[in-house]
Amino acid sequence: MSDYVRNLWYMAAWVGEVPDGGVLARTFLDEKWLIYELTTGGYAMLRDRCAHRFVQLSKGERNGNVIHCPYHGLGFNAEGTCVHSPFPDVHPQASVATMPIVARHDALWFWPGEAALADEGTIPDFAYLSDPDRAAWRGYLPIKGHYELMTDNLMDLTHAEFLHRESFGVNGSIFTGKQTVRQDDDGAIWNNWDMVDSTPPDWAKPMLNEGERVDQYLHMRWHAPSCMDLSIGMARAGSGGADFVVPPMRNPHIITPETQETCHYFYDHAPGEEEAARARQVFVMEDEPMIAAAHEGLAGEDFWDARPLILPSDAGAIRARRRMMQLLRAERA
Amino acid sequence: MSDYVRNLWYMAAWVGEVPDGGVLARTFLDEKWLIYELTTGGYAMLRDRCAHRFVQLSKGERNGNVIHCPYHGLGFNAEGTCVHSPFPDVHPQASVATMPIVARHDALWFWPGEAALADEGTIPDFAYLSDPDRAAWRGYLPIKGHYELMTDNLMDLTHAEFLHRESFGVNGSIFTGKQTVRQDDDGAIWNNWDMVDSTPPDWAKPMLNEGERVDQYLHMRWHAPSCMDLSIGMARAGSGGADFVVPPMRNPHIITPETQETCHYFYDHAPGEEEAARARQVFVMEDEPMIAAAHEGLAGEDFWDARPLILPSDAGAIRARRRMMQLLRAERA
Amino acid sequence: MSDYVRNLWYMAAWVGEVPDGGVLARTFLDEKWLIYELTTGGYAMLRDRCAHRFVQLSKGERNGNVIHCPYHGLGFNAEGTCVHSPFPDVHPQASVATMPIVARHDALWFWPGEAALADEGTIPDFAYLSDPDRAAWRGYLPIKGHYELMTDNLMDLTHAEFLHRESFGVNGSIFTGKQTVRQDDDGAIWNNWDMVDSTPPDWAKPMLNEGERVDQYLHMRWHAPSCMDLSIGMARAGSGGADFVVPPMRNPHIITPETQETCHYFYDHAPGEEEAARARQVFVMEDEPMIAAAHEGLAGEDFWDARPLILPSDAGAIRARRRMMQLLRAERA
Repeated sequence: MSDYVRNLWYMAAWVGEVPDGGVLARTFLDEKWLIYELTTGGYAMLRDRCAHRFVQLSKGERNGNVIHCPYHGLGFNAEGTCVHSPFPDVHPQASVATMPIVARHDALWFWPGEAALADEGTIPDFAYLSDPDRAAWRGYLPIKGHYELMTDNLMDLTHAEFLHRESFGVNGSIFTGKQTVRQDDDGAIWNNWDMVDSTPPDWAKPMLNEGERVDQYLHMRWHAPSCMDLSIGMARAGSGGADFVVPPMRNPHIITPETQETCHYFYDHAPGEEEAARARQVFVMEDEPMIAAAHEGLAGEDFWDARPLILPSDAGAIRARRRMMQLLRAERA
Repeated sequence: MSDYVRNLWYMAAWVGEVPDGGVLARTFLDEKWLIYELTTGGYAMLRDRCAHRFVQLSKGERNGNVIHCPYHGLGFNAEGTCVHSPFPDVHPQASVATMPIVARHDALWFWPGEAALADEGTIPDFAYLSDPDRAAWRGYLPIKGHYELMTDNLMDLTHAEFLHRESFGVNGSIFTGKQTVRQDDDGAIWNNWDMVDSTPPDWAKPMLNEGERVDQYLHMRWHAPSCMDLSIGMARAGSGGADFVVPPMRNPHIITPETQETCHYFYDHAPGEEEAARARQVFVMEDEPMIAAAHEGLAGEDFWDARPLILPSDAGAIRARRRMMQLLRAERA
Repeated sequence: MSDYVRNLWYMAAWVGEVPDGGVLARTFLDEKWLIYELTTGGYAMLRDRCAHRFVQLSKGERNGNVIHCPYHGLGFNAEGTCVHSPFPDVHPQASVATMPIVARHDALWFWPGEAALADEGTIPDFAYLSDPDRAAWRGYLPIKGHYELMTDNLMDLTHAEFLHRESFGVNGSIFTGKQTVRQDDDGAIWNNWDMVDSTPPDWAKPMLNEGERVDQYLHMRWHAPSCMDLSIGMARAGSGGADFVVPPMRNPHIITPETQETCHYFYDHAPGEEEAARARQVFVMEDEPMIAAAHEGLAGEDFWDARPLILPSDAGAIRARRRMMQLLRAERA
């Protein structure tokens, strides 16, 4: 019985993380896997464990689309079939597990469940990531903590008012807004903050007339398991949300479990080295230690058994957690 | 079901260990706690885990008697009640656990059991520690081993004859004495050695007439869980224990479990930097490695399952272990 | 119930590893033991854990054939009996466990099972190790992996064709040969490769006439638990195996479990510092990382549950694994 929902698309990597002609080795859902781009186009994802003596194939050599185990030289193709053996006999019955993997929106997505159910149409929409200008400004961080603690973090952005007050300087405006939580037919859960006719933050004042007020929004969309899409904007009050003070932004915050104790965090950020440094400051110096501290605080106890206080601002996060529990129960049934 | 006896006073820290205006974070009985001195006098002890997302409150900020979580800014008062929230709503129903904690004999004592049963009158008597001249000469050491291995160590001081022969030089005189083990009405267990009309150790001879003999005693008093009080003295033989060669000494050796694998050791020593160095030599270089070696030797096996050889000199230590088992059984019943 | 077959001889150390007048501390089958040479000849092997407070005796002092615990000074003789106490009473009933240990073929062998069944006649034959010229060229390596993964490695030398192609340069000739697997009455299992009338490897050609062919053999003999003996040779084809191109070689490859996760590897190699370096290159840089990778790949899963692909070249290794399972089942019955 798995601890993870399996019939879902999970993000594996940014397309740019897969080395040319090589393989990317990464642990997902407690198992080692390797990913490579096929010489014939597309990608393959193999269990990173030789069928013979369990050595990581990623430590071996790649020859075209065949990956050779470093121990005895057995070679496996993109379907996981053993197609090369230095031994006199070939062993076509030998194979390693594979998973469906597809490139979409400049990211790679894998499906750890029943392959026949893998419908690419259900990959969450991050079409804006296909913009080539964004490709340079991607980030990846390993996080020490259960992936749902990252869902909590990102679905409840009020923590920015405290944890990120130096780095983001939102000045408490979020609490003057209205929080809306809703669910789409495709399973998306939104946790939205709208601050209509509000005082602008200090940094925006030079761009506005004296005393001018703004409409701000901060919308977070979630898809299972933990694929989040942040939209933020600020328009002149009364412009019907059309006259933006600065261009509105949209950013992915996508989390994939590595183990029960750790996860992968994929994000991007505004262009420029300064913004890259700022993103790292916020994520590495501020968020990551909090996730690690929360994980350590749980000390192996189940999240619900620890009876967490639920704040109104957690509404979206809790709904996402409940959705994951429903999906897990449904798969186990 | 706890592995620890809970309705007991445990020593948390020396009063001087709590930083002015700050908090002391320490793990006791497998849980993280924080301790601070109230601006209004007295002390508070809170579970070091926010009610919301389990982050260590000790990583946050203290504002008067309110401790703020570093993640979302929730503030908890000395009663553990959430009294501050950056969110529009306050959440008075939210709280973190607290424990009774009192300062007594210049040490802090907490009661992890039923608060209504916490009677300060049952804190073991270490009144001599209130002497301000002693305050400078306190020590604290983290120990890698189960706390009862420290009880064994201290209740059977014959190990000094072997392990500490360089540092203490007791010259085997302990074995010429008489061992007495007794129990007081308040639960104290004594393991006493009395060496009447004995040859003095070499270091004492210059203070005595040629051939003069001495009465020595070495008394250790134990209170649950592992609070020991050592009294030692040496008087001219025949003086009825009144004519001391050097002033008699009394020293605390108080142990509190941190986890099942580790414990806290609180002690003091004779005044002076030289004595501080000597105490560290004995405890850090000689005792601690033995406790760690004993713990490692058990390799997770239960002490009694490993069928320890019981020496007559262990009589007090074994009685103390039995007492702890009785108390644990009584609490579980 | 043990995870190990107990009624077997296991190799503990090379005789030369035991320090003169001292003790060798080593973990075998998950327990700490110490070994020393008796002043009266022969060897003793004691559980490295004092009967009193479980401290490692090997951290104490040796006095003749008596080992003193560093904690309280209790002394144990070669039979494990407590024969010295600094306390007034002696405690002849106190003892630590011992195991039969004998020196044979310049190695030390211990019997962790029922002592009455320990028949030295069943120690596998490595008589050639008694040759004093070989004594300087012995090696010992700690290996991170289950000991049976080393059995697999050594009983299937075809991995040399891939993993050791730089270091050994066997040029694929093994696959032109015939594999024979057989079992002797004494329980020995052989995995033999014979390459009759084969093309010589490049390094041998200068020693042969133009176009001359050779008969090569590579025979590995296994005894439980994991004591292997390698014989290799190359003779001029048609000489009936008598006209050797280079002197035939025989080398021990003996493995003893340390824990379920680690093992001890005892080997020797051809004389000379260059050969010592070559052996280390092959074992430390090539074999050991593969064993560690295989162990990590299993990630705690049972070998058979992981459904390993079985190649024809594994025939000897698999037969050895099956033999160990039979022995274990027989002991448990």
